[in-house]
Order: sequence, then structure tokens, then C-alpha cells
Amino acid sequence: MGEHTLTLDNLNPNVKVMEYAVRGPLVIRAGEIEKELEKGTKKPFNEVIKANIGDCHAMGQQPITFIRQVLALVTYPPLLDDPKFPEDAKQRARTILAGCRGGSVGSYTDSPGIEVIRRHVAQYIQERDGIPADWQNVVVSAGASDAIRNVLKLLICEVNGKRPGVMIPIPQYPLYSASLAEFNMPQIGYYLNESTNWGLDVSELQRAISEARKTCHPRAIVIINPGNPTGQVLSRENIEAIIKFAYKEKLFIFADEVYQHNIYAPGSKFYSFKKVLIEMGEPYSKMELASFMSCSKGYMGECGLRGGYAEVINMEPQVKAMYLKAISAMLCPTVLGQACLDIVMNPPKKGEPSYELFQKEKNEVLESLKLRAKMVADTFNSMEGFSCNTVQGAMYAFPQMKLPPKAIEAAKKAGKAPDVFYAFELLENTGICIVPGSGFGQQPGTYHFRTTILPQPDKLKGMLDKFAQFHKQFLSKYS
Amino acid sequence: MGEHTLTLDNLNPNVKVMEYAVRGPLVIRAGEIEKELEKGTKKPFNEVIKANIGDCHAMGQQPITFIRQVLALVTYPPLLDDPKFPEDAKQRARTILAGCRGGSVGSYTDSPGIEVIRRHVAQYIQERDGIPADWQNVVVSAGASDAIRNVLKLLICEVNGKRPGVMIPIPQYPLYSASLAEFNMPQIGYYLNESTNWGLDVSELQRAISEARKTCHPRAIVIINPGNPTGQVLSRENIEAIIKFAYKEKLFIFADEVYQHNIYAPGSKFYSFKKVLIEMGEPYSKMELASFMSCSKGYMGECGLRGGYAEVINMEPQVKAMYLKAISAMLCPTVLGQACLDIVMNPPKKGEPSYELFQKEKNEVLESLKLRAKMVADTFNSMEGFSCNTVQGAMYAFPQMKLPPKAIEAAKKAGKAPDVFYAFELLENTGICIVPGSGFGQQPGTYHFRTTILPQPDKLKGMLDKFAQFHKQFLSKYS
Repeated sequence: MGEHTLTLDNLNPNVKVMEYAVRGPLVIRAGEIEKELEKGTKKPFNEVIKANIGDCHAMGQQPITFIRQVLALVTYPPLLDDPKFPEDAKQRARTILAGCRGGSVGSYTDSPGIEVIRRHVAQYIQERDGIPADWQNVVVSAGASDAIRNVLKLLICEVNGKRPGVMIPIPQYPLYSASLAEFNMPQIGYYLNESTNWGLDVSELQRAISEARKTCHPRAIVIINPGNPTGQVLSRENIEAIIKFAYKEKLFIFADEVYQHNIYAPGSKFYSFKKVLIEMGEPYSKMELASFMSCSKGYMGECGLRGGYAEVINMEPQVKAMYLKAISAMLCPTVLGQACLDIVMNPPKKGEPSYELFQKEKNEVLESLKLRAKMVADTFNSMEGFSCNTVQGAMYAFPQMKLPPKAIEAAKKAGKAPDVFYAFELLENTGICIVPGSGFGQQPGTYHFRTTILPQPDKLKGMLDKFAQFHKQFLSKYS
Repeated sequence: MGEHTLTLDNLNPNVKVMEYAVRGPLVIRAGEIEKELEKGTKKPFNEVIKANIGDCHAMGQQPITFIRQVLALVTYPPLLDDPKFPEDAKQRARTILAGCRGGSVGSYTDSPGIEVIRRHVAQYIQERDGIPADWQNVVVSAGASDAIRNVLKLLICEVNGKRPGVMIPIPQYPLYSASLAEFNMPQIGYYLNESTNWGLDVSELQRAISEARKTCHPRAIVIINPGNPTGQVLSRENIEAIIKFAYKEKLFIFADEVYQHNIYAPGSKFYSFKKVLIEMGEPYSKMELASFMSCSKGYMGECGLRGGYAEVINMEPQVKAMYLKAISAMLCPTVLGQACLDIVMNPPKKGEPSYELFQKEKNEVLESLKLRAKMVADTFNSMEGFSCNTVQGAMYAFPQMKLPPKAIEAAKKAGKAPDVFYAFELLENTGICIVPGSGFGQQPGTYHFRTTILPQPDKLKGMLDKFAQFHKQFLSKYS
């Protein structure tokens, strides 16, 4: 033979074109540099700071004690007899175990998750919105990404001979562009308005969809609120306008609301799409909507446990049956991820032994993130050629930078986009790993990057100082 | 509006056609019956016995202590100070935590898994086969299903204007038929030979591929060894013949080897496809092969934790880069599933404090499964109109039954396939839930079902007695 049966020429073409910048070449290089440092290679820095990914614990955030206690209890039930574990943690653990077949987290669950956990999710949503939620509309998943892809793939179908398009924000979280590429669904980018703190203009939605209708059949709109990578929190009025637009254009709404706990700016408040849509009354309250949530963000930051859910409302019943059938081939989401979700949905209540510690740990994380959100935006705004919108929520800043023409030329020579060139220079000189704006999308001719606000306060300050110093040198080198 | 934007008419057509019998209508009905029993509805039985799915702990199998201890330790590290946990469990936990960013299982890992765990997998494979294994060929996954689908989707590409076909055994595990349907890849069924204990005849492979070449481009062959649902263990000679066939036909080999620990019959021995292929030397040793393993089966049966891996050898390097890129959009497999895999790959060694308990628990499970494998086959063989091959391995029996013409007529009237009709009658009358053969595929005109051998010995005996009684009544009703 000598030759391979699977080659670049006959590889899935959708896989070839997909990109996932948050884990792209820059991150691969960062990993290499880490290994070089381990081997003792001399660099102008001692460590790589991974500000490229919303990976809370990796950046030193401590897990919430109560979550980990319940997980240890369900994993190793002999601990239920250990007096060191608080009673409310044991009660949560017993409830979860009672929902597991054979009383073991090692059993498969129903594909949409353990019933009692789905009920806790519905209760959480109901309390959050003040609107009834049906546990049978809740589908538990291995993180929000899994849930998003499972709903998205239902829409893969040509309509009137046209490919199914999905509206996504630009800049966007690259899970969407990567999944749409894999599913061979055209992406219809709508630009967020940087001059109104990444607001969402209906006129821009209209422009984007009108143009897209020439070549595809728009079927859905994705909104990320609070925004990733942009950090904005949408106002209720803005959400209403988007819902009206989606109604007029017959779009299925994907509300990516995984940062719903991460609201920092004074005056900003989280409204779920479900709440607004239901409160708008008919006909809007009958629209199809999927809302996504995750254990990976918020105050818990349990990215590695892979817990999340979709709440899907107003789906046509036969379609819903097909949706549930489609997820069944993957058996079930990880039970320990489900257990983590259960605790986030059903945290210690006032009067329970763990209540105070839980609240303290939760508030400390959120308060600290709030300070860091401001620190990051303020620092970038103090740097020459930078402008950074207020980080109202989520875990990221997405500053714009003006690059000198000579830098743009140097990038061209290096065969890189200017923002990618800048990010590589930053990485090689300081160890700071960010994601260039082109990985998320940006207005042509503008240059951005996404940085998380997750390094712990001291480290973040050090990182921003190094960043400012690098930027000065970069400017003087290329001016 | 009044109408839905997503309807059966414009739903992903691949989702519409996919079927996953292990969780199909029969299992849904079983769930309903369970709820009816809870509510006090009178039935001729007190409980539903789920013999439809290889869900070990659900059927009363106890978790392996050492696995759960390590998982509790990595989840809640303060337990590392608890003297009740053995030192070797703590050592394993420390190694895993050292591989986690920020020392937390709540951090994302590299998409193909934590490096030290990949190294342990490679070491396990090396010891199993006596052949070197490269940790960089190991991709950790959320169960084997996840790994299989991720490799399978690389092959979605028309070749010479023909759709990409994949050879799968009939009967097969429906993950394959469901995934191929979802990916719109033609399935090329090759029949296993029931008269040689579900052996694999190369002449049948040849017949199947020759016929398929008229309409599609065969790209890969799936072999399940030990067999699911058929329980056979392939001989080394059989594996060699299959490899030669795959070489001649330029097929990518998928070796589903998740039951590699589950070997029961005297004289049966597990040979990995990798071992055989490498030992055959060139040109075979250069062939592309993906082998899959899981924490859900074996002696551990940790289905709910979702741990597994693929070892992919001889993949073209650029293709491998694309494969790794494609999985990165899903971030990473659950870290606790990875941790479980780590322990299965690196169990307590002789001399370590947990060695004896671990061996005892492991051997008890496997010995008991061995007895049950024999009990199930013997019982079915003693029943009128049944014939059941030896369950050499895995966790299932797939007996054939002759159904009387009147039963076949009654099934037709009920609009059901005869084996489905039988399975529903069995469920409604006894509470026993099995999966009809048509969910896996069978020779036209033959009727089978799959039952697991997993109910605990007493319960299994009771189940088989009830089954035999039902069958007698069924025969007398329809004769």
C-alpha cells in the first residue's frame, strides 16, 4: 500500500474548513513554550499566562466547597457516614443517588438527564424568571456546547432548495462558526455595534438577513447574552426588539445565556430571553426558543465537569420527539456533570448548614470578577491606541487597538493577519496568550483581541503591566 | 404565526431516519410501566427488569472501591488528609491533580485528554499487546461512542462521486447504524455467521462489499470484538483474515474492543486488532486503525462516568492534525471520566495497599458474569424453539427463536415486526425488557432478541424462569 486510505484529499471537507480559535495555533504555540520553559529554555518570562480561555480554576479560582462535597458523596457513598460532611450536602447527595438506577452514578441515566435534576433546573428557571417552567422542556447535557450542537443539528435541512443559514453575532464565540462549518450551514454574521458598547441594532440584523436571503434560507438566530467575547449585557428593550425581529423573520431563537450569573456593571441586569418572550404575550410567547446554561462559568467555573442544559420551549411535539431520539444514541451526559448542575440549580438555602459558606464563596468570586472586569477595561483604555468597552458581564474584554502601518506591513510579510501577528509577538515576548479578534470576527480594517479577566487580581495586575510595557515597545519598534 | 418554524417537514432528514433501538419505543414503554407500577397500577409483575441495556450498576453490580476512592479524592482534595483513604489511591489522585491546570478537575484539559492519562493508556496498551504504543496516538473521550463518532465523521466525503460507505456487522450495535444515518453515510451490512457462533466469513465480507461498490464507495470496516449483541470472541486467524481483506479493499479499520475484559468461554482469548496487525508485519502493519475502549463495560461498568479512548495508528499526519482540530470545538471530555479511565489503565499493582481488594472485586464481577453467561445460554437452549450460541464474551446473548405462523399473523395485524410484537408481549406480561433483533439487524425471516446477562444471579434466575413460563404461554396462545 504505502499510501493512506484517508488523506487530506478525501477527508470530510467540513472538517477541513472549521476553525476553533480559542484552541488554535496560538494556543498550540503557548503549549510548546510551556514545555520549553519546563526544559529550562531561557525566555524573557517565567510562565505562560493563558488569558485565551474562560478556564476559571486553571487561573487559580477555588472550587465552591459545597459543590465538591456533594460530588465526593455521590461518588463514594461510604462518606455519607462521615460526620465531617454537612447534613445539607448529604441530603443533596441522597436525592441525586435516589435518581440514579441502582443508586450509582455509574449507571446510565435517561438521555435528557435524571428526572429530579431536570425538575430542579425547571424550579431554578421558574424562580429566576417568575414564570412557570416545565421540567420536560429541560434537556441536561455535557456542557452547553453539547446542548447547542444537538439543537443546531435539527435545523440541517435545505428549504426551498436553499441551504439553512444561522445568524450569529460578529464577534462571536467560535463554537458557533466551528459547528456551522462542520454542519455545512451558512453563517449569517450580524455586527455588534462597538460604539454602543456592543449593542445589537435591529437595522444591522435586517441588513444581514436581507443580504443572506439571496443565497440561503435563514432559519435561526443566535444571541449571546451576556456577550462572549464582548462582555455586554443586553437591555430588556433590546431583547424585545430582537424577539420581534425573529418573529417577523420566522427564526428559531438560540439564547446562549451561560454567563447569566456574571453581571458586573452598575445598572446592568440579566433578563432571560424566555422571560421577555413570555411576558410579551402572543404571538411572541408561542415562539420556539432554546436557552442554554452551563456549570463552566458563573461563580462555579466547573469547566472540566461538563454540566449544562437546554430549555427548549414551544417546540413542535413531533420534532421534540425526534430531538430526544437523536440524543439517545449518545446514551447520556456524564452523571457527575449532571450532579454538579443539580447543585448549581439547587444551592444551599437560608437556614441550611452550608448556606453561609456557600454565599461567601460565591460572592467573593463574583465581587472579585467585578473588580477585575473594571481593572482590565480601565488599563486598556489607558494605553495608547487602545479603546475598550465596559465589561458589563461575562468573563472577557474585547479591546480595539490601532496598529501602525509598519506593523501591518510586517504582519503581511510574515503571512499573518495583523492581529494574529500582534498576538504572536505578545506571546513570544511576554508569555501572555490572548486570542486575536479575527478568531471571533471583527469589522474589516479593525483589530481586536479577546482576553479573559480570570487571572487572580495580583497576577492580572502583573499581566496588564507587562502587556502595557510590551505595547509601548511594539509601537516604538513599528512607528 | 400559529405555526412552527421547525416542523417535521423541514427537520434534518438524517435525524428523522435514525433509529436507536437500545433506547427505542420498547424502552420508552418500559419507563411508562415503571411509572404505572409506582402509582399502584396492578400488573402481573412487581418490577420492570431492564435487560435491554448494558448498564451494570443499574442491575446491582457494585462499583470498584478503588476507582471511587480516587474519584472522591480528586473531586474533594481535603480528603487527601483523611487517613481512611489508602495511600495508593492518594498517590493516583495526586498524579491526576498534577495533570490538571490549577490542580483542579474543574479546569479544561487538552482536547485529547490529560497527558499523564494518555501516557497511562499507552502503557496499558503496551502491556496488553507486548507492542509499543505512542501516547500521542491516544485520544481520550467521553465514552467510546464519542470517540467512534469523532473518527467516523472524518470519513464523510464523497469519493469519485459516490457516497462513503462503512461496513458494519449484522447484527450490530445500533450506535453505528444511528451515527451512519445521522452522517448520511451508507451502511454496508455484512452478516455474521450464526451457525459458527457468529463467526466472520471473509466470503460474506466480499459479497457485501462487491454489492455495495455498485452504489457507494466503501471506506471503512467496523468490527465489534467481543461481539455486541452477539457475544462471540474472534480467533486470531479470523482477525488476520479480516485485516487482509481490509488491506485489499483499502478500508480504514474500526476495532470496537470495549468488551476486551469480558471473556468467559474456555478457549476464548482476546486479541486486539492492533496486536495482530502489527505482528503481521508490512504491508499490514502500516494500515490505518482506530481501536476503541471504554470505562462503561469490563469489570468496572462505570457507564455514567463517560470515560473512554481511541488509539489511532498510522493516520496520515495532516489528517491527524485535522482530527485533533475537529475535537477541539467540544473543548474536552469530562475530567472525572478521564480520571476513571486513568485508574482502569493504571490499577493497583502487586504490593500496593489496595491491590488485593481491587483484584478480589474485579475477579468476583468477572467470575459471576462468566456463570451468568453460561446460565443464560443454557436456559434459552432448553426452551422450545430457541437456539442460543455460546456467550464467549461481552455482556449479551442473542438467541434465535422460531415463532409460530399465528404469532406472525397477529404481529402483522398489530402493525409490528414479529420480534417486536414478541418483545412487547413479554414486557407487558412479565416486566422483562429486551431488545428485538430487528433493532440490530438479522437474516430476513429469522427472529432474535438481545438480552443482557447483567441482572444479579438470583434475579437473573427469576427472570429466566418467568421468561420460560411466558414463552410456553405464548406458544400455546398462538399454536
